[in-house]
Amino acid sequence: MKTKTLQLSLGERSYPIIIGNGVLGKPELLNPFISGQQVMVVSNETIAPLYLSQVLTALSDYQCETVILPDGEEFKNLDILNRIFDALLQARFSRDATLIALGGGVVGDMTGFAAACYQRGIDFIQIPTTLLAQVDSSVGGKTGVNHPLGKNMIGAFHQPRCVLIDTATLQTLEDRQLHAGLAEVIKYGLIRDADFFTWLEENMDALLARDDAAIAYAIEKSCHYKAEIVAADERESGIRVLLNLGHTFAHAIETGMGYGAWLHGEAVAAGMCMASEMSHRMGKITSADRQRIIDLIQRAQLPVNAPTKISVDRFLTLMAVDKKVQCGKLRLVLLGSIGSAFLSDDFDLEVLKKSISACRQDTMKHEV
Amino acid sequence: MKTKTLQLSLGERSYPIIIGNGVLGKPELLNPFISGQQVMVVSNETIAPLYLSQVLTALSDYQCETVILPDGEEFKNLDILNRIFDALLQARFSRDATLIALGGGVVGDMTGFAAACYQRGIDFIQIPTTLLAQVDSSVGGKTGVNHPLGKNMIGAFHQPRCVLIDTATLQTLEDRQLHAGLAEVIKYGLIRDADFFTWLEENMDALLARDDAAIAYAIEKSCHYKAEIVAADERESGIRVLLNLGHTFAHAIETGMGYGAWLHGEAVAAGMCMASEMSHRMGKITSADRQRIIDLIQRAQLPVNAPTKISVDRFLTLMAVDKKVQCGKLRLVLLGSIGSAFLSDDFDLEVLKKSISACRQDTMKHEV
Repeated sequence: MKTKTLQLSLGERSYPIIIGNGVLGKPELLNPFISGQQVMVVSNETIAPLYLSQVLTALSDYQCETVILPDGEEFKNLDILNRIFDALLQARFSRDATLIALGGGVVGDMTGFAAACYQRGIDFIQIPTTLLAQVDSSVGGKTGVNHPLGKNMIGAFHQPRCVLIDTATLQTLEDRQLHAGLAEVIKYGLIRDADFFTWLEENMDALLARDDAAIAYAIEKSCHYKAEIVAADERESGIRVLLNLGHTFAHAIETGMGYGAWLHGEAVAAGMCMASEMSHRMGKITSADRQRIIDLIQRAQLPVNAPTKISVDRFLTLMAVDKKVQCGKLRLVLLGSIGSAFLSDDFDLEVLKKSISACRQDTMKHEV
Repeated sequence: MKTKTLQLSLGERSYPIIIGNGVLGKPELLNPFISGQQVMVVSNETIAPLYLSQVLTALSDYQCETVILPDGEEFKNLDILNRIFDALLQARFSRDATLIALGGGVVGDMTGFAAACYQRGIDFIQIPTTLLAQVDSSVGGKTGVNHPLGKNMIGAFHQPRCVLIDTATLQTLEDRQLHAGLAEVIKYGLIRDADFFTWLEENMDALLARDDAAIAYAIEKSCHYKAEIVAADERESGIRVLLNLGHTFAHAIETGMGYGAWLHGEAVAAGMCMASEMSHRMGKITSADRQRIIDLIQRAQLPVNAPTKISVDRFLTLMAVDKKVQCGKLRLVLLGSIGSAFLSDDFDLEVLKKSISACRQDTMKHEV
């Protein structure tokens, strides 16, 4: 079994990101990161039937419990989080217990947040099973839940002990989830690496066909950039904010449409198109580059427009609770070119409104 | 206005503990610790009518909101915590907002935990208004809420930007709350300073009479030790655990009786007597010292026995979820002498049972 290991460097909280086909059931990859005897695997109703038994077999040396959560962004809240605390206390798990997140971004975010809070902090391990979680949310220690008024508003920075990425799990992933993950992959090209963006243009068909080599390369590349950026700025006081390209628009879509209506990656796809539109209107990127971005996102079978159901004014209201707001001023991640992003609070509100308005339609305006 | 300032040294997260009579309404003491423009004061139904307007007047330069929680340990849970998040999001408070806890330990723990989690961490300030919060819970960054199965089981380490202790607030404190706070004061004598214990024996009448000089001295001494210990071991991997003298027993009483039936300080008082009983049975302290401890706690008008409503077996079950459990083994803070405590997992379960049993009665057995 060939594996590739990247390291996220954060002093004594450094950890490996292990990528490979079939790594999920390997006790020798998990055990070094479990310090006590108690392990609780948190998964969801979709993933558990597929992979839970493999993971439990790998954990046969431990006192092992499981919690199965309902599947979907609409369950990422304090109420459902409490089920993890219930299970931990019913099993009398102590401070040296380890949580394992087996699932997508929702399972990872909630399990990580439960680990951050249980007895004021215990260890956890990420085993992401969706492309989105593998390339983005499982790495970097952002954990949390949603609030009806704002996405990811309640949470903690809490780093996992390791991230175990089994590319084999992508073979059972439904198409819509695969596409959603590609949005975050495209994001790394946009903010960091024009050559990778070109590679994605050339290899989108292979990725959509779930070619293992292409997918593994896309995951490695994404995790490499994520790890590099998080190591430089764990708490998002600087460069890490660029990972939020499209996310302020995306969170407004997710909150506005009701959690779970759009997948996070779908909202990010539309959000990146909106950020591109705005960057173009501000003279930062050419219309040709804007079109390349829209074309690639469309080829990944992702939405390039915002839902008409959310008015421009409602967009602005929803965006006003974004975590990047500082001193009452909204800050947005914009593009200087394909491969380079920047944070700005220096924009005309009218340009923002026009950008939202231009993207807010059901037909593909940009194709005209 | 005379104030005394202690410093809690934690590198860039260091902060002052400012103690004085009438400090609560002083903007010059608060403003240096508020970095943004948005401030939310969290208080409870008992404290708000007494002191909220003074604090709000001191904050007149800021965009200020308030949240008033119900008063009592039984409300220290995730549901009530969510009210703080609701208020923060309804007011569209951003990452540079500051929370201010105005109240006792429950308000402080919940406000601190809300600050730890809101947008993954914002600033907060402690203005403790009970003796217990002033001498113990407001200092050191332990925040959190209770779970039906265990006290303080969900939380975070999150340090305040400053602690502002107004001794004038103790003049409106009900007797029962004053006595409860004295339990934690006595704790510092027991674990750290035999001379301070003697001072408490000599000055208990002055403390009960709310003599401002005696109370200020007791608070300074307590905060001095708390700050010293937390600076040495913020995350409780070593010496900080000694601050939990009596607390494993106490948490069992609080959970077993239902949160709010016993005040935390009352349970700690009984718990310290139980730890003393066990220390004596293990040959660590003399019966004379055990009696001095019981006498002082009784003079503070605090319980020295555990409630008979909780059976010995139920005690053991409740104690098994304690945060100090490691590798399945319960660890207890015990006394080597008055002024010196130690952590031990090396005790006979029978001795623990007998110690619980000996203290579990409604009459004052130790007086026979």
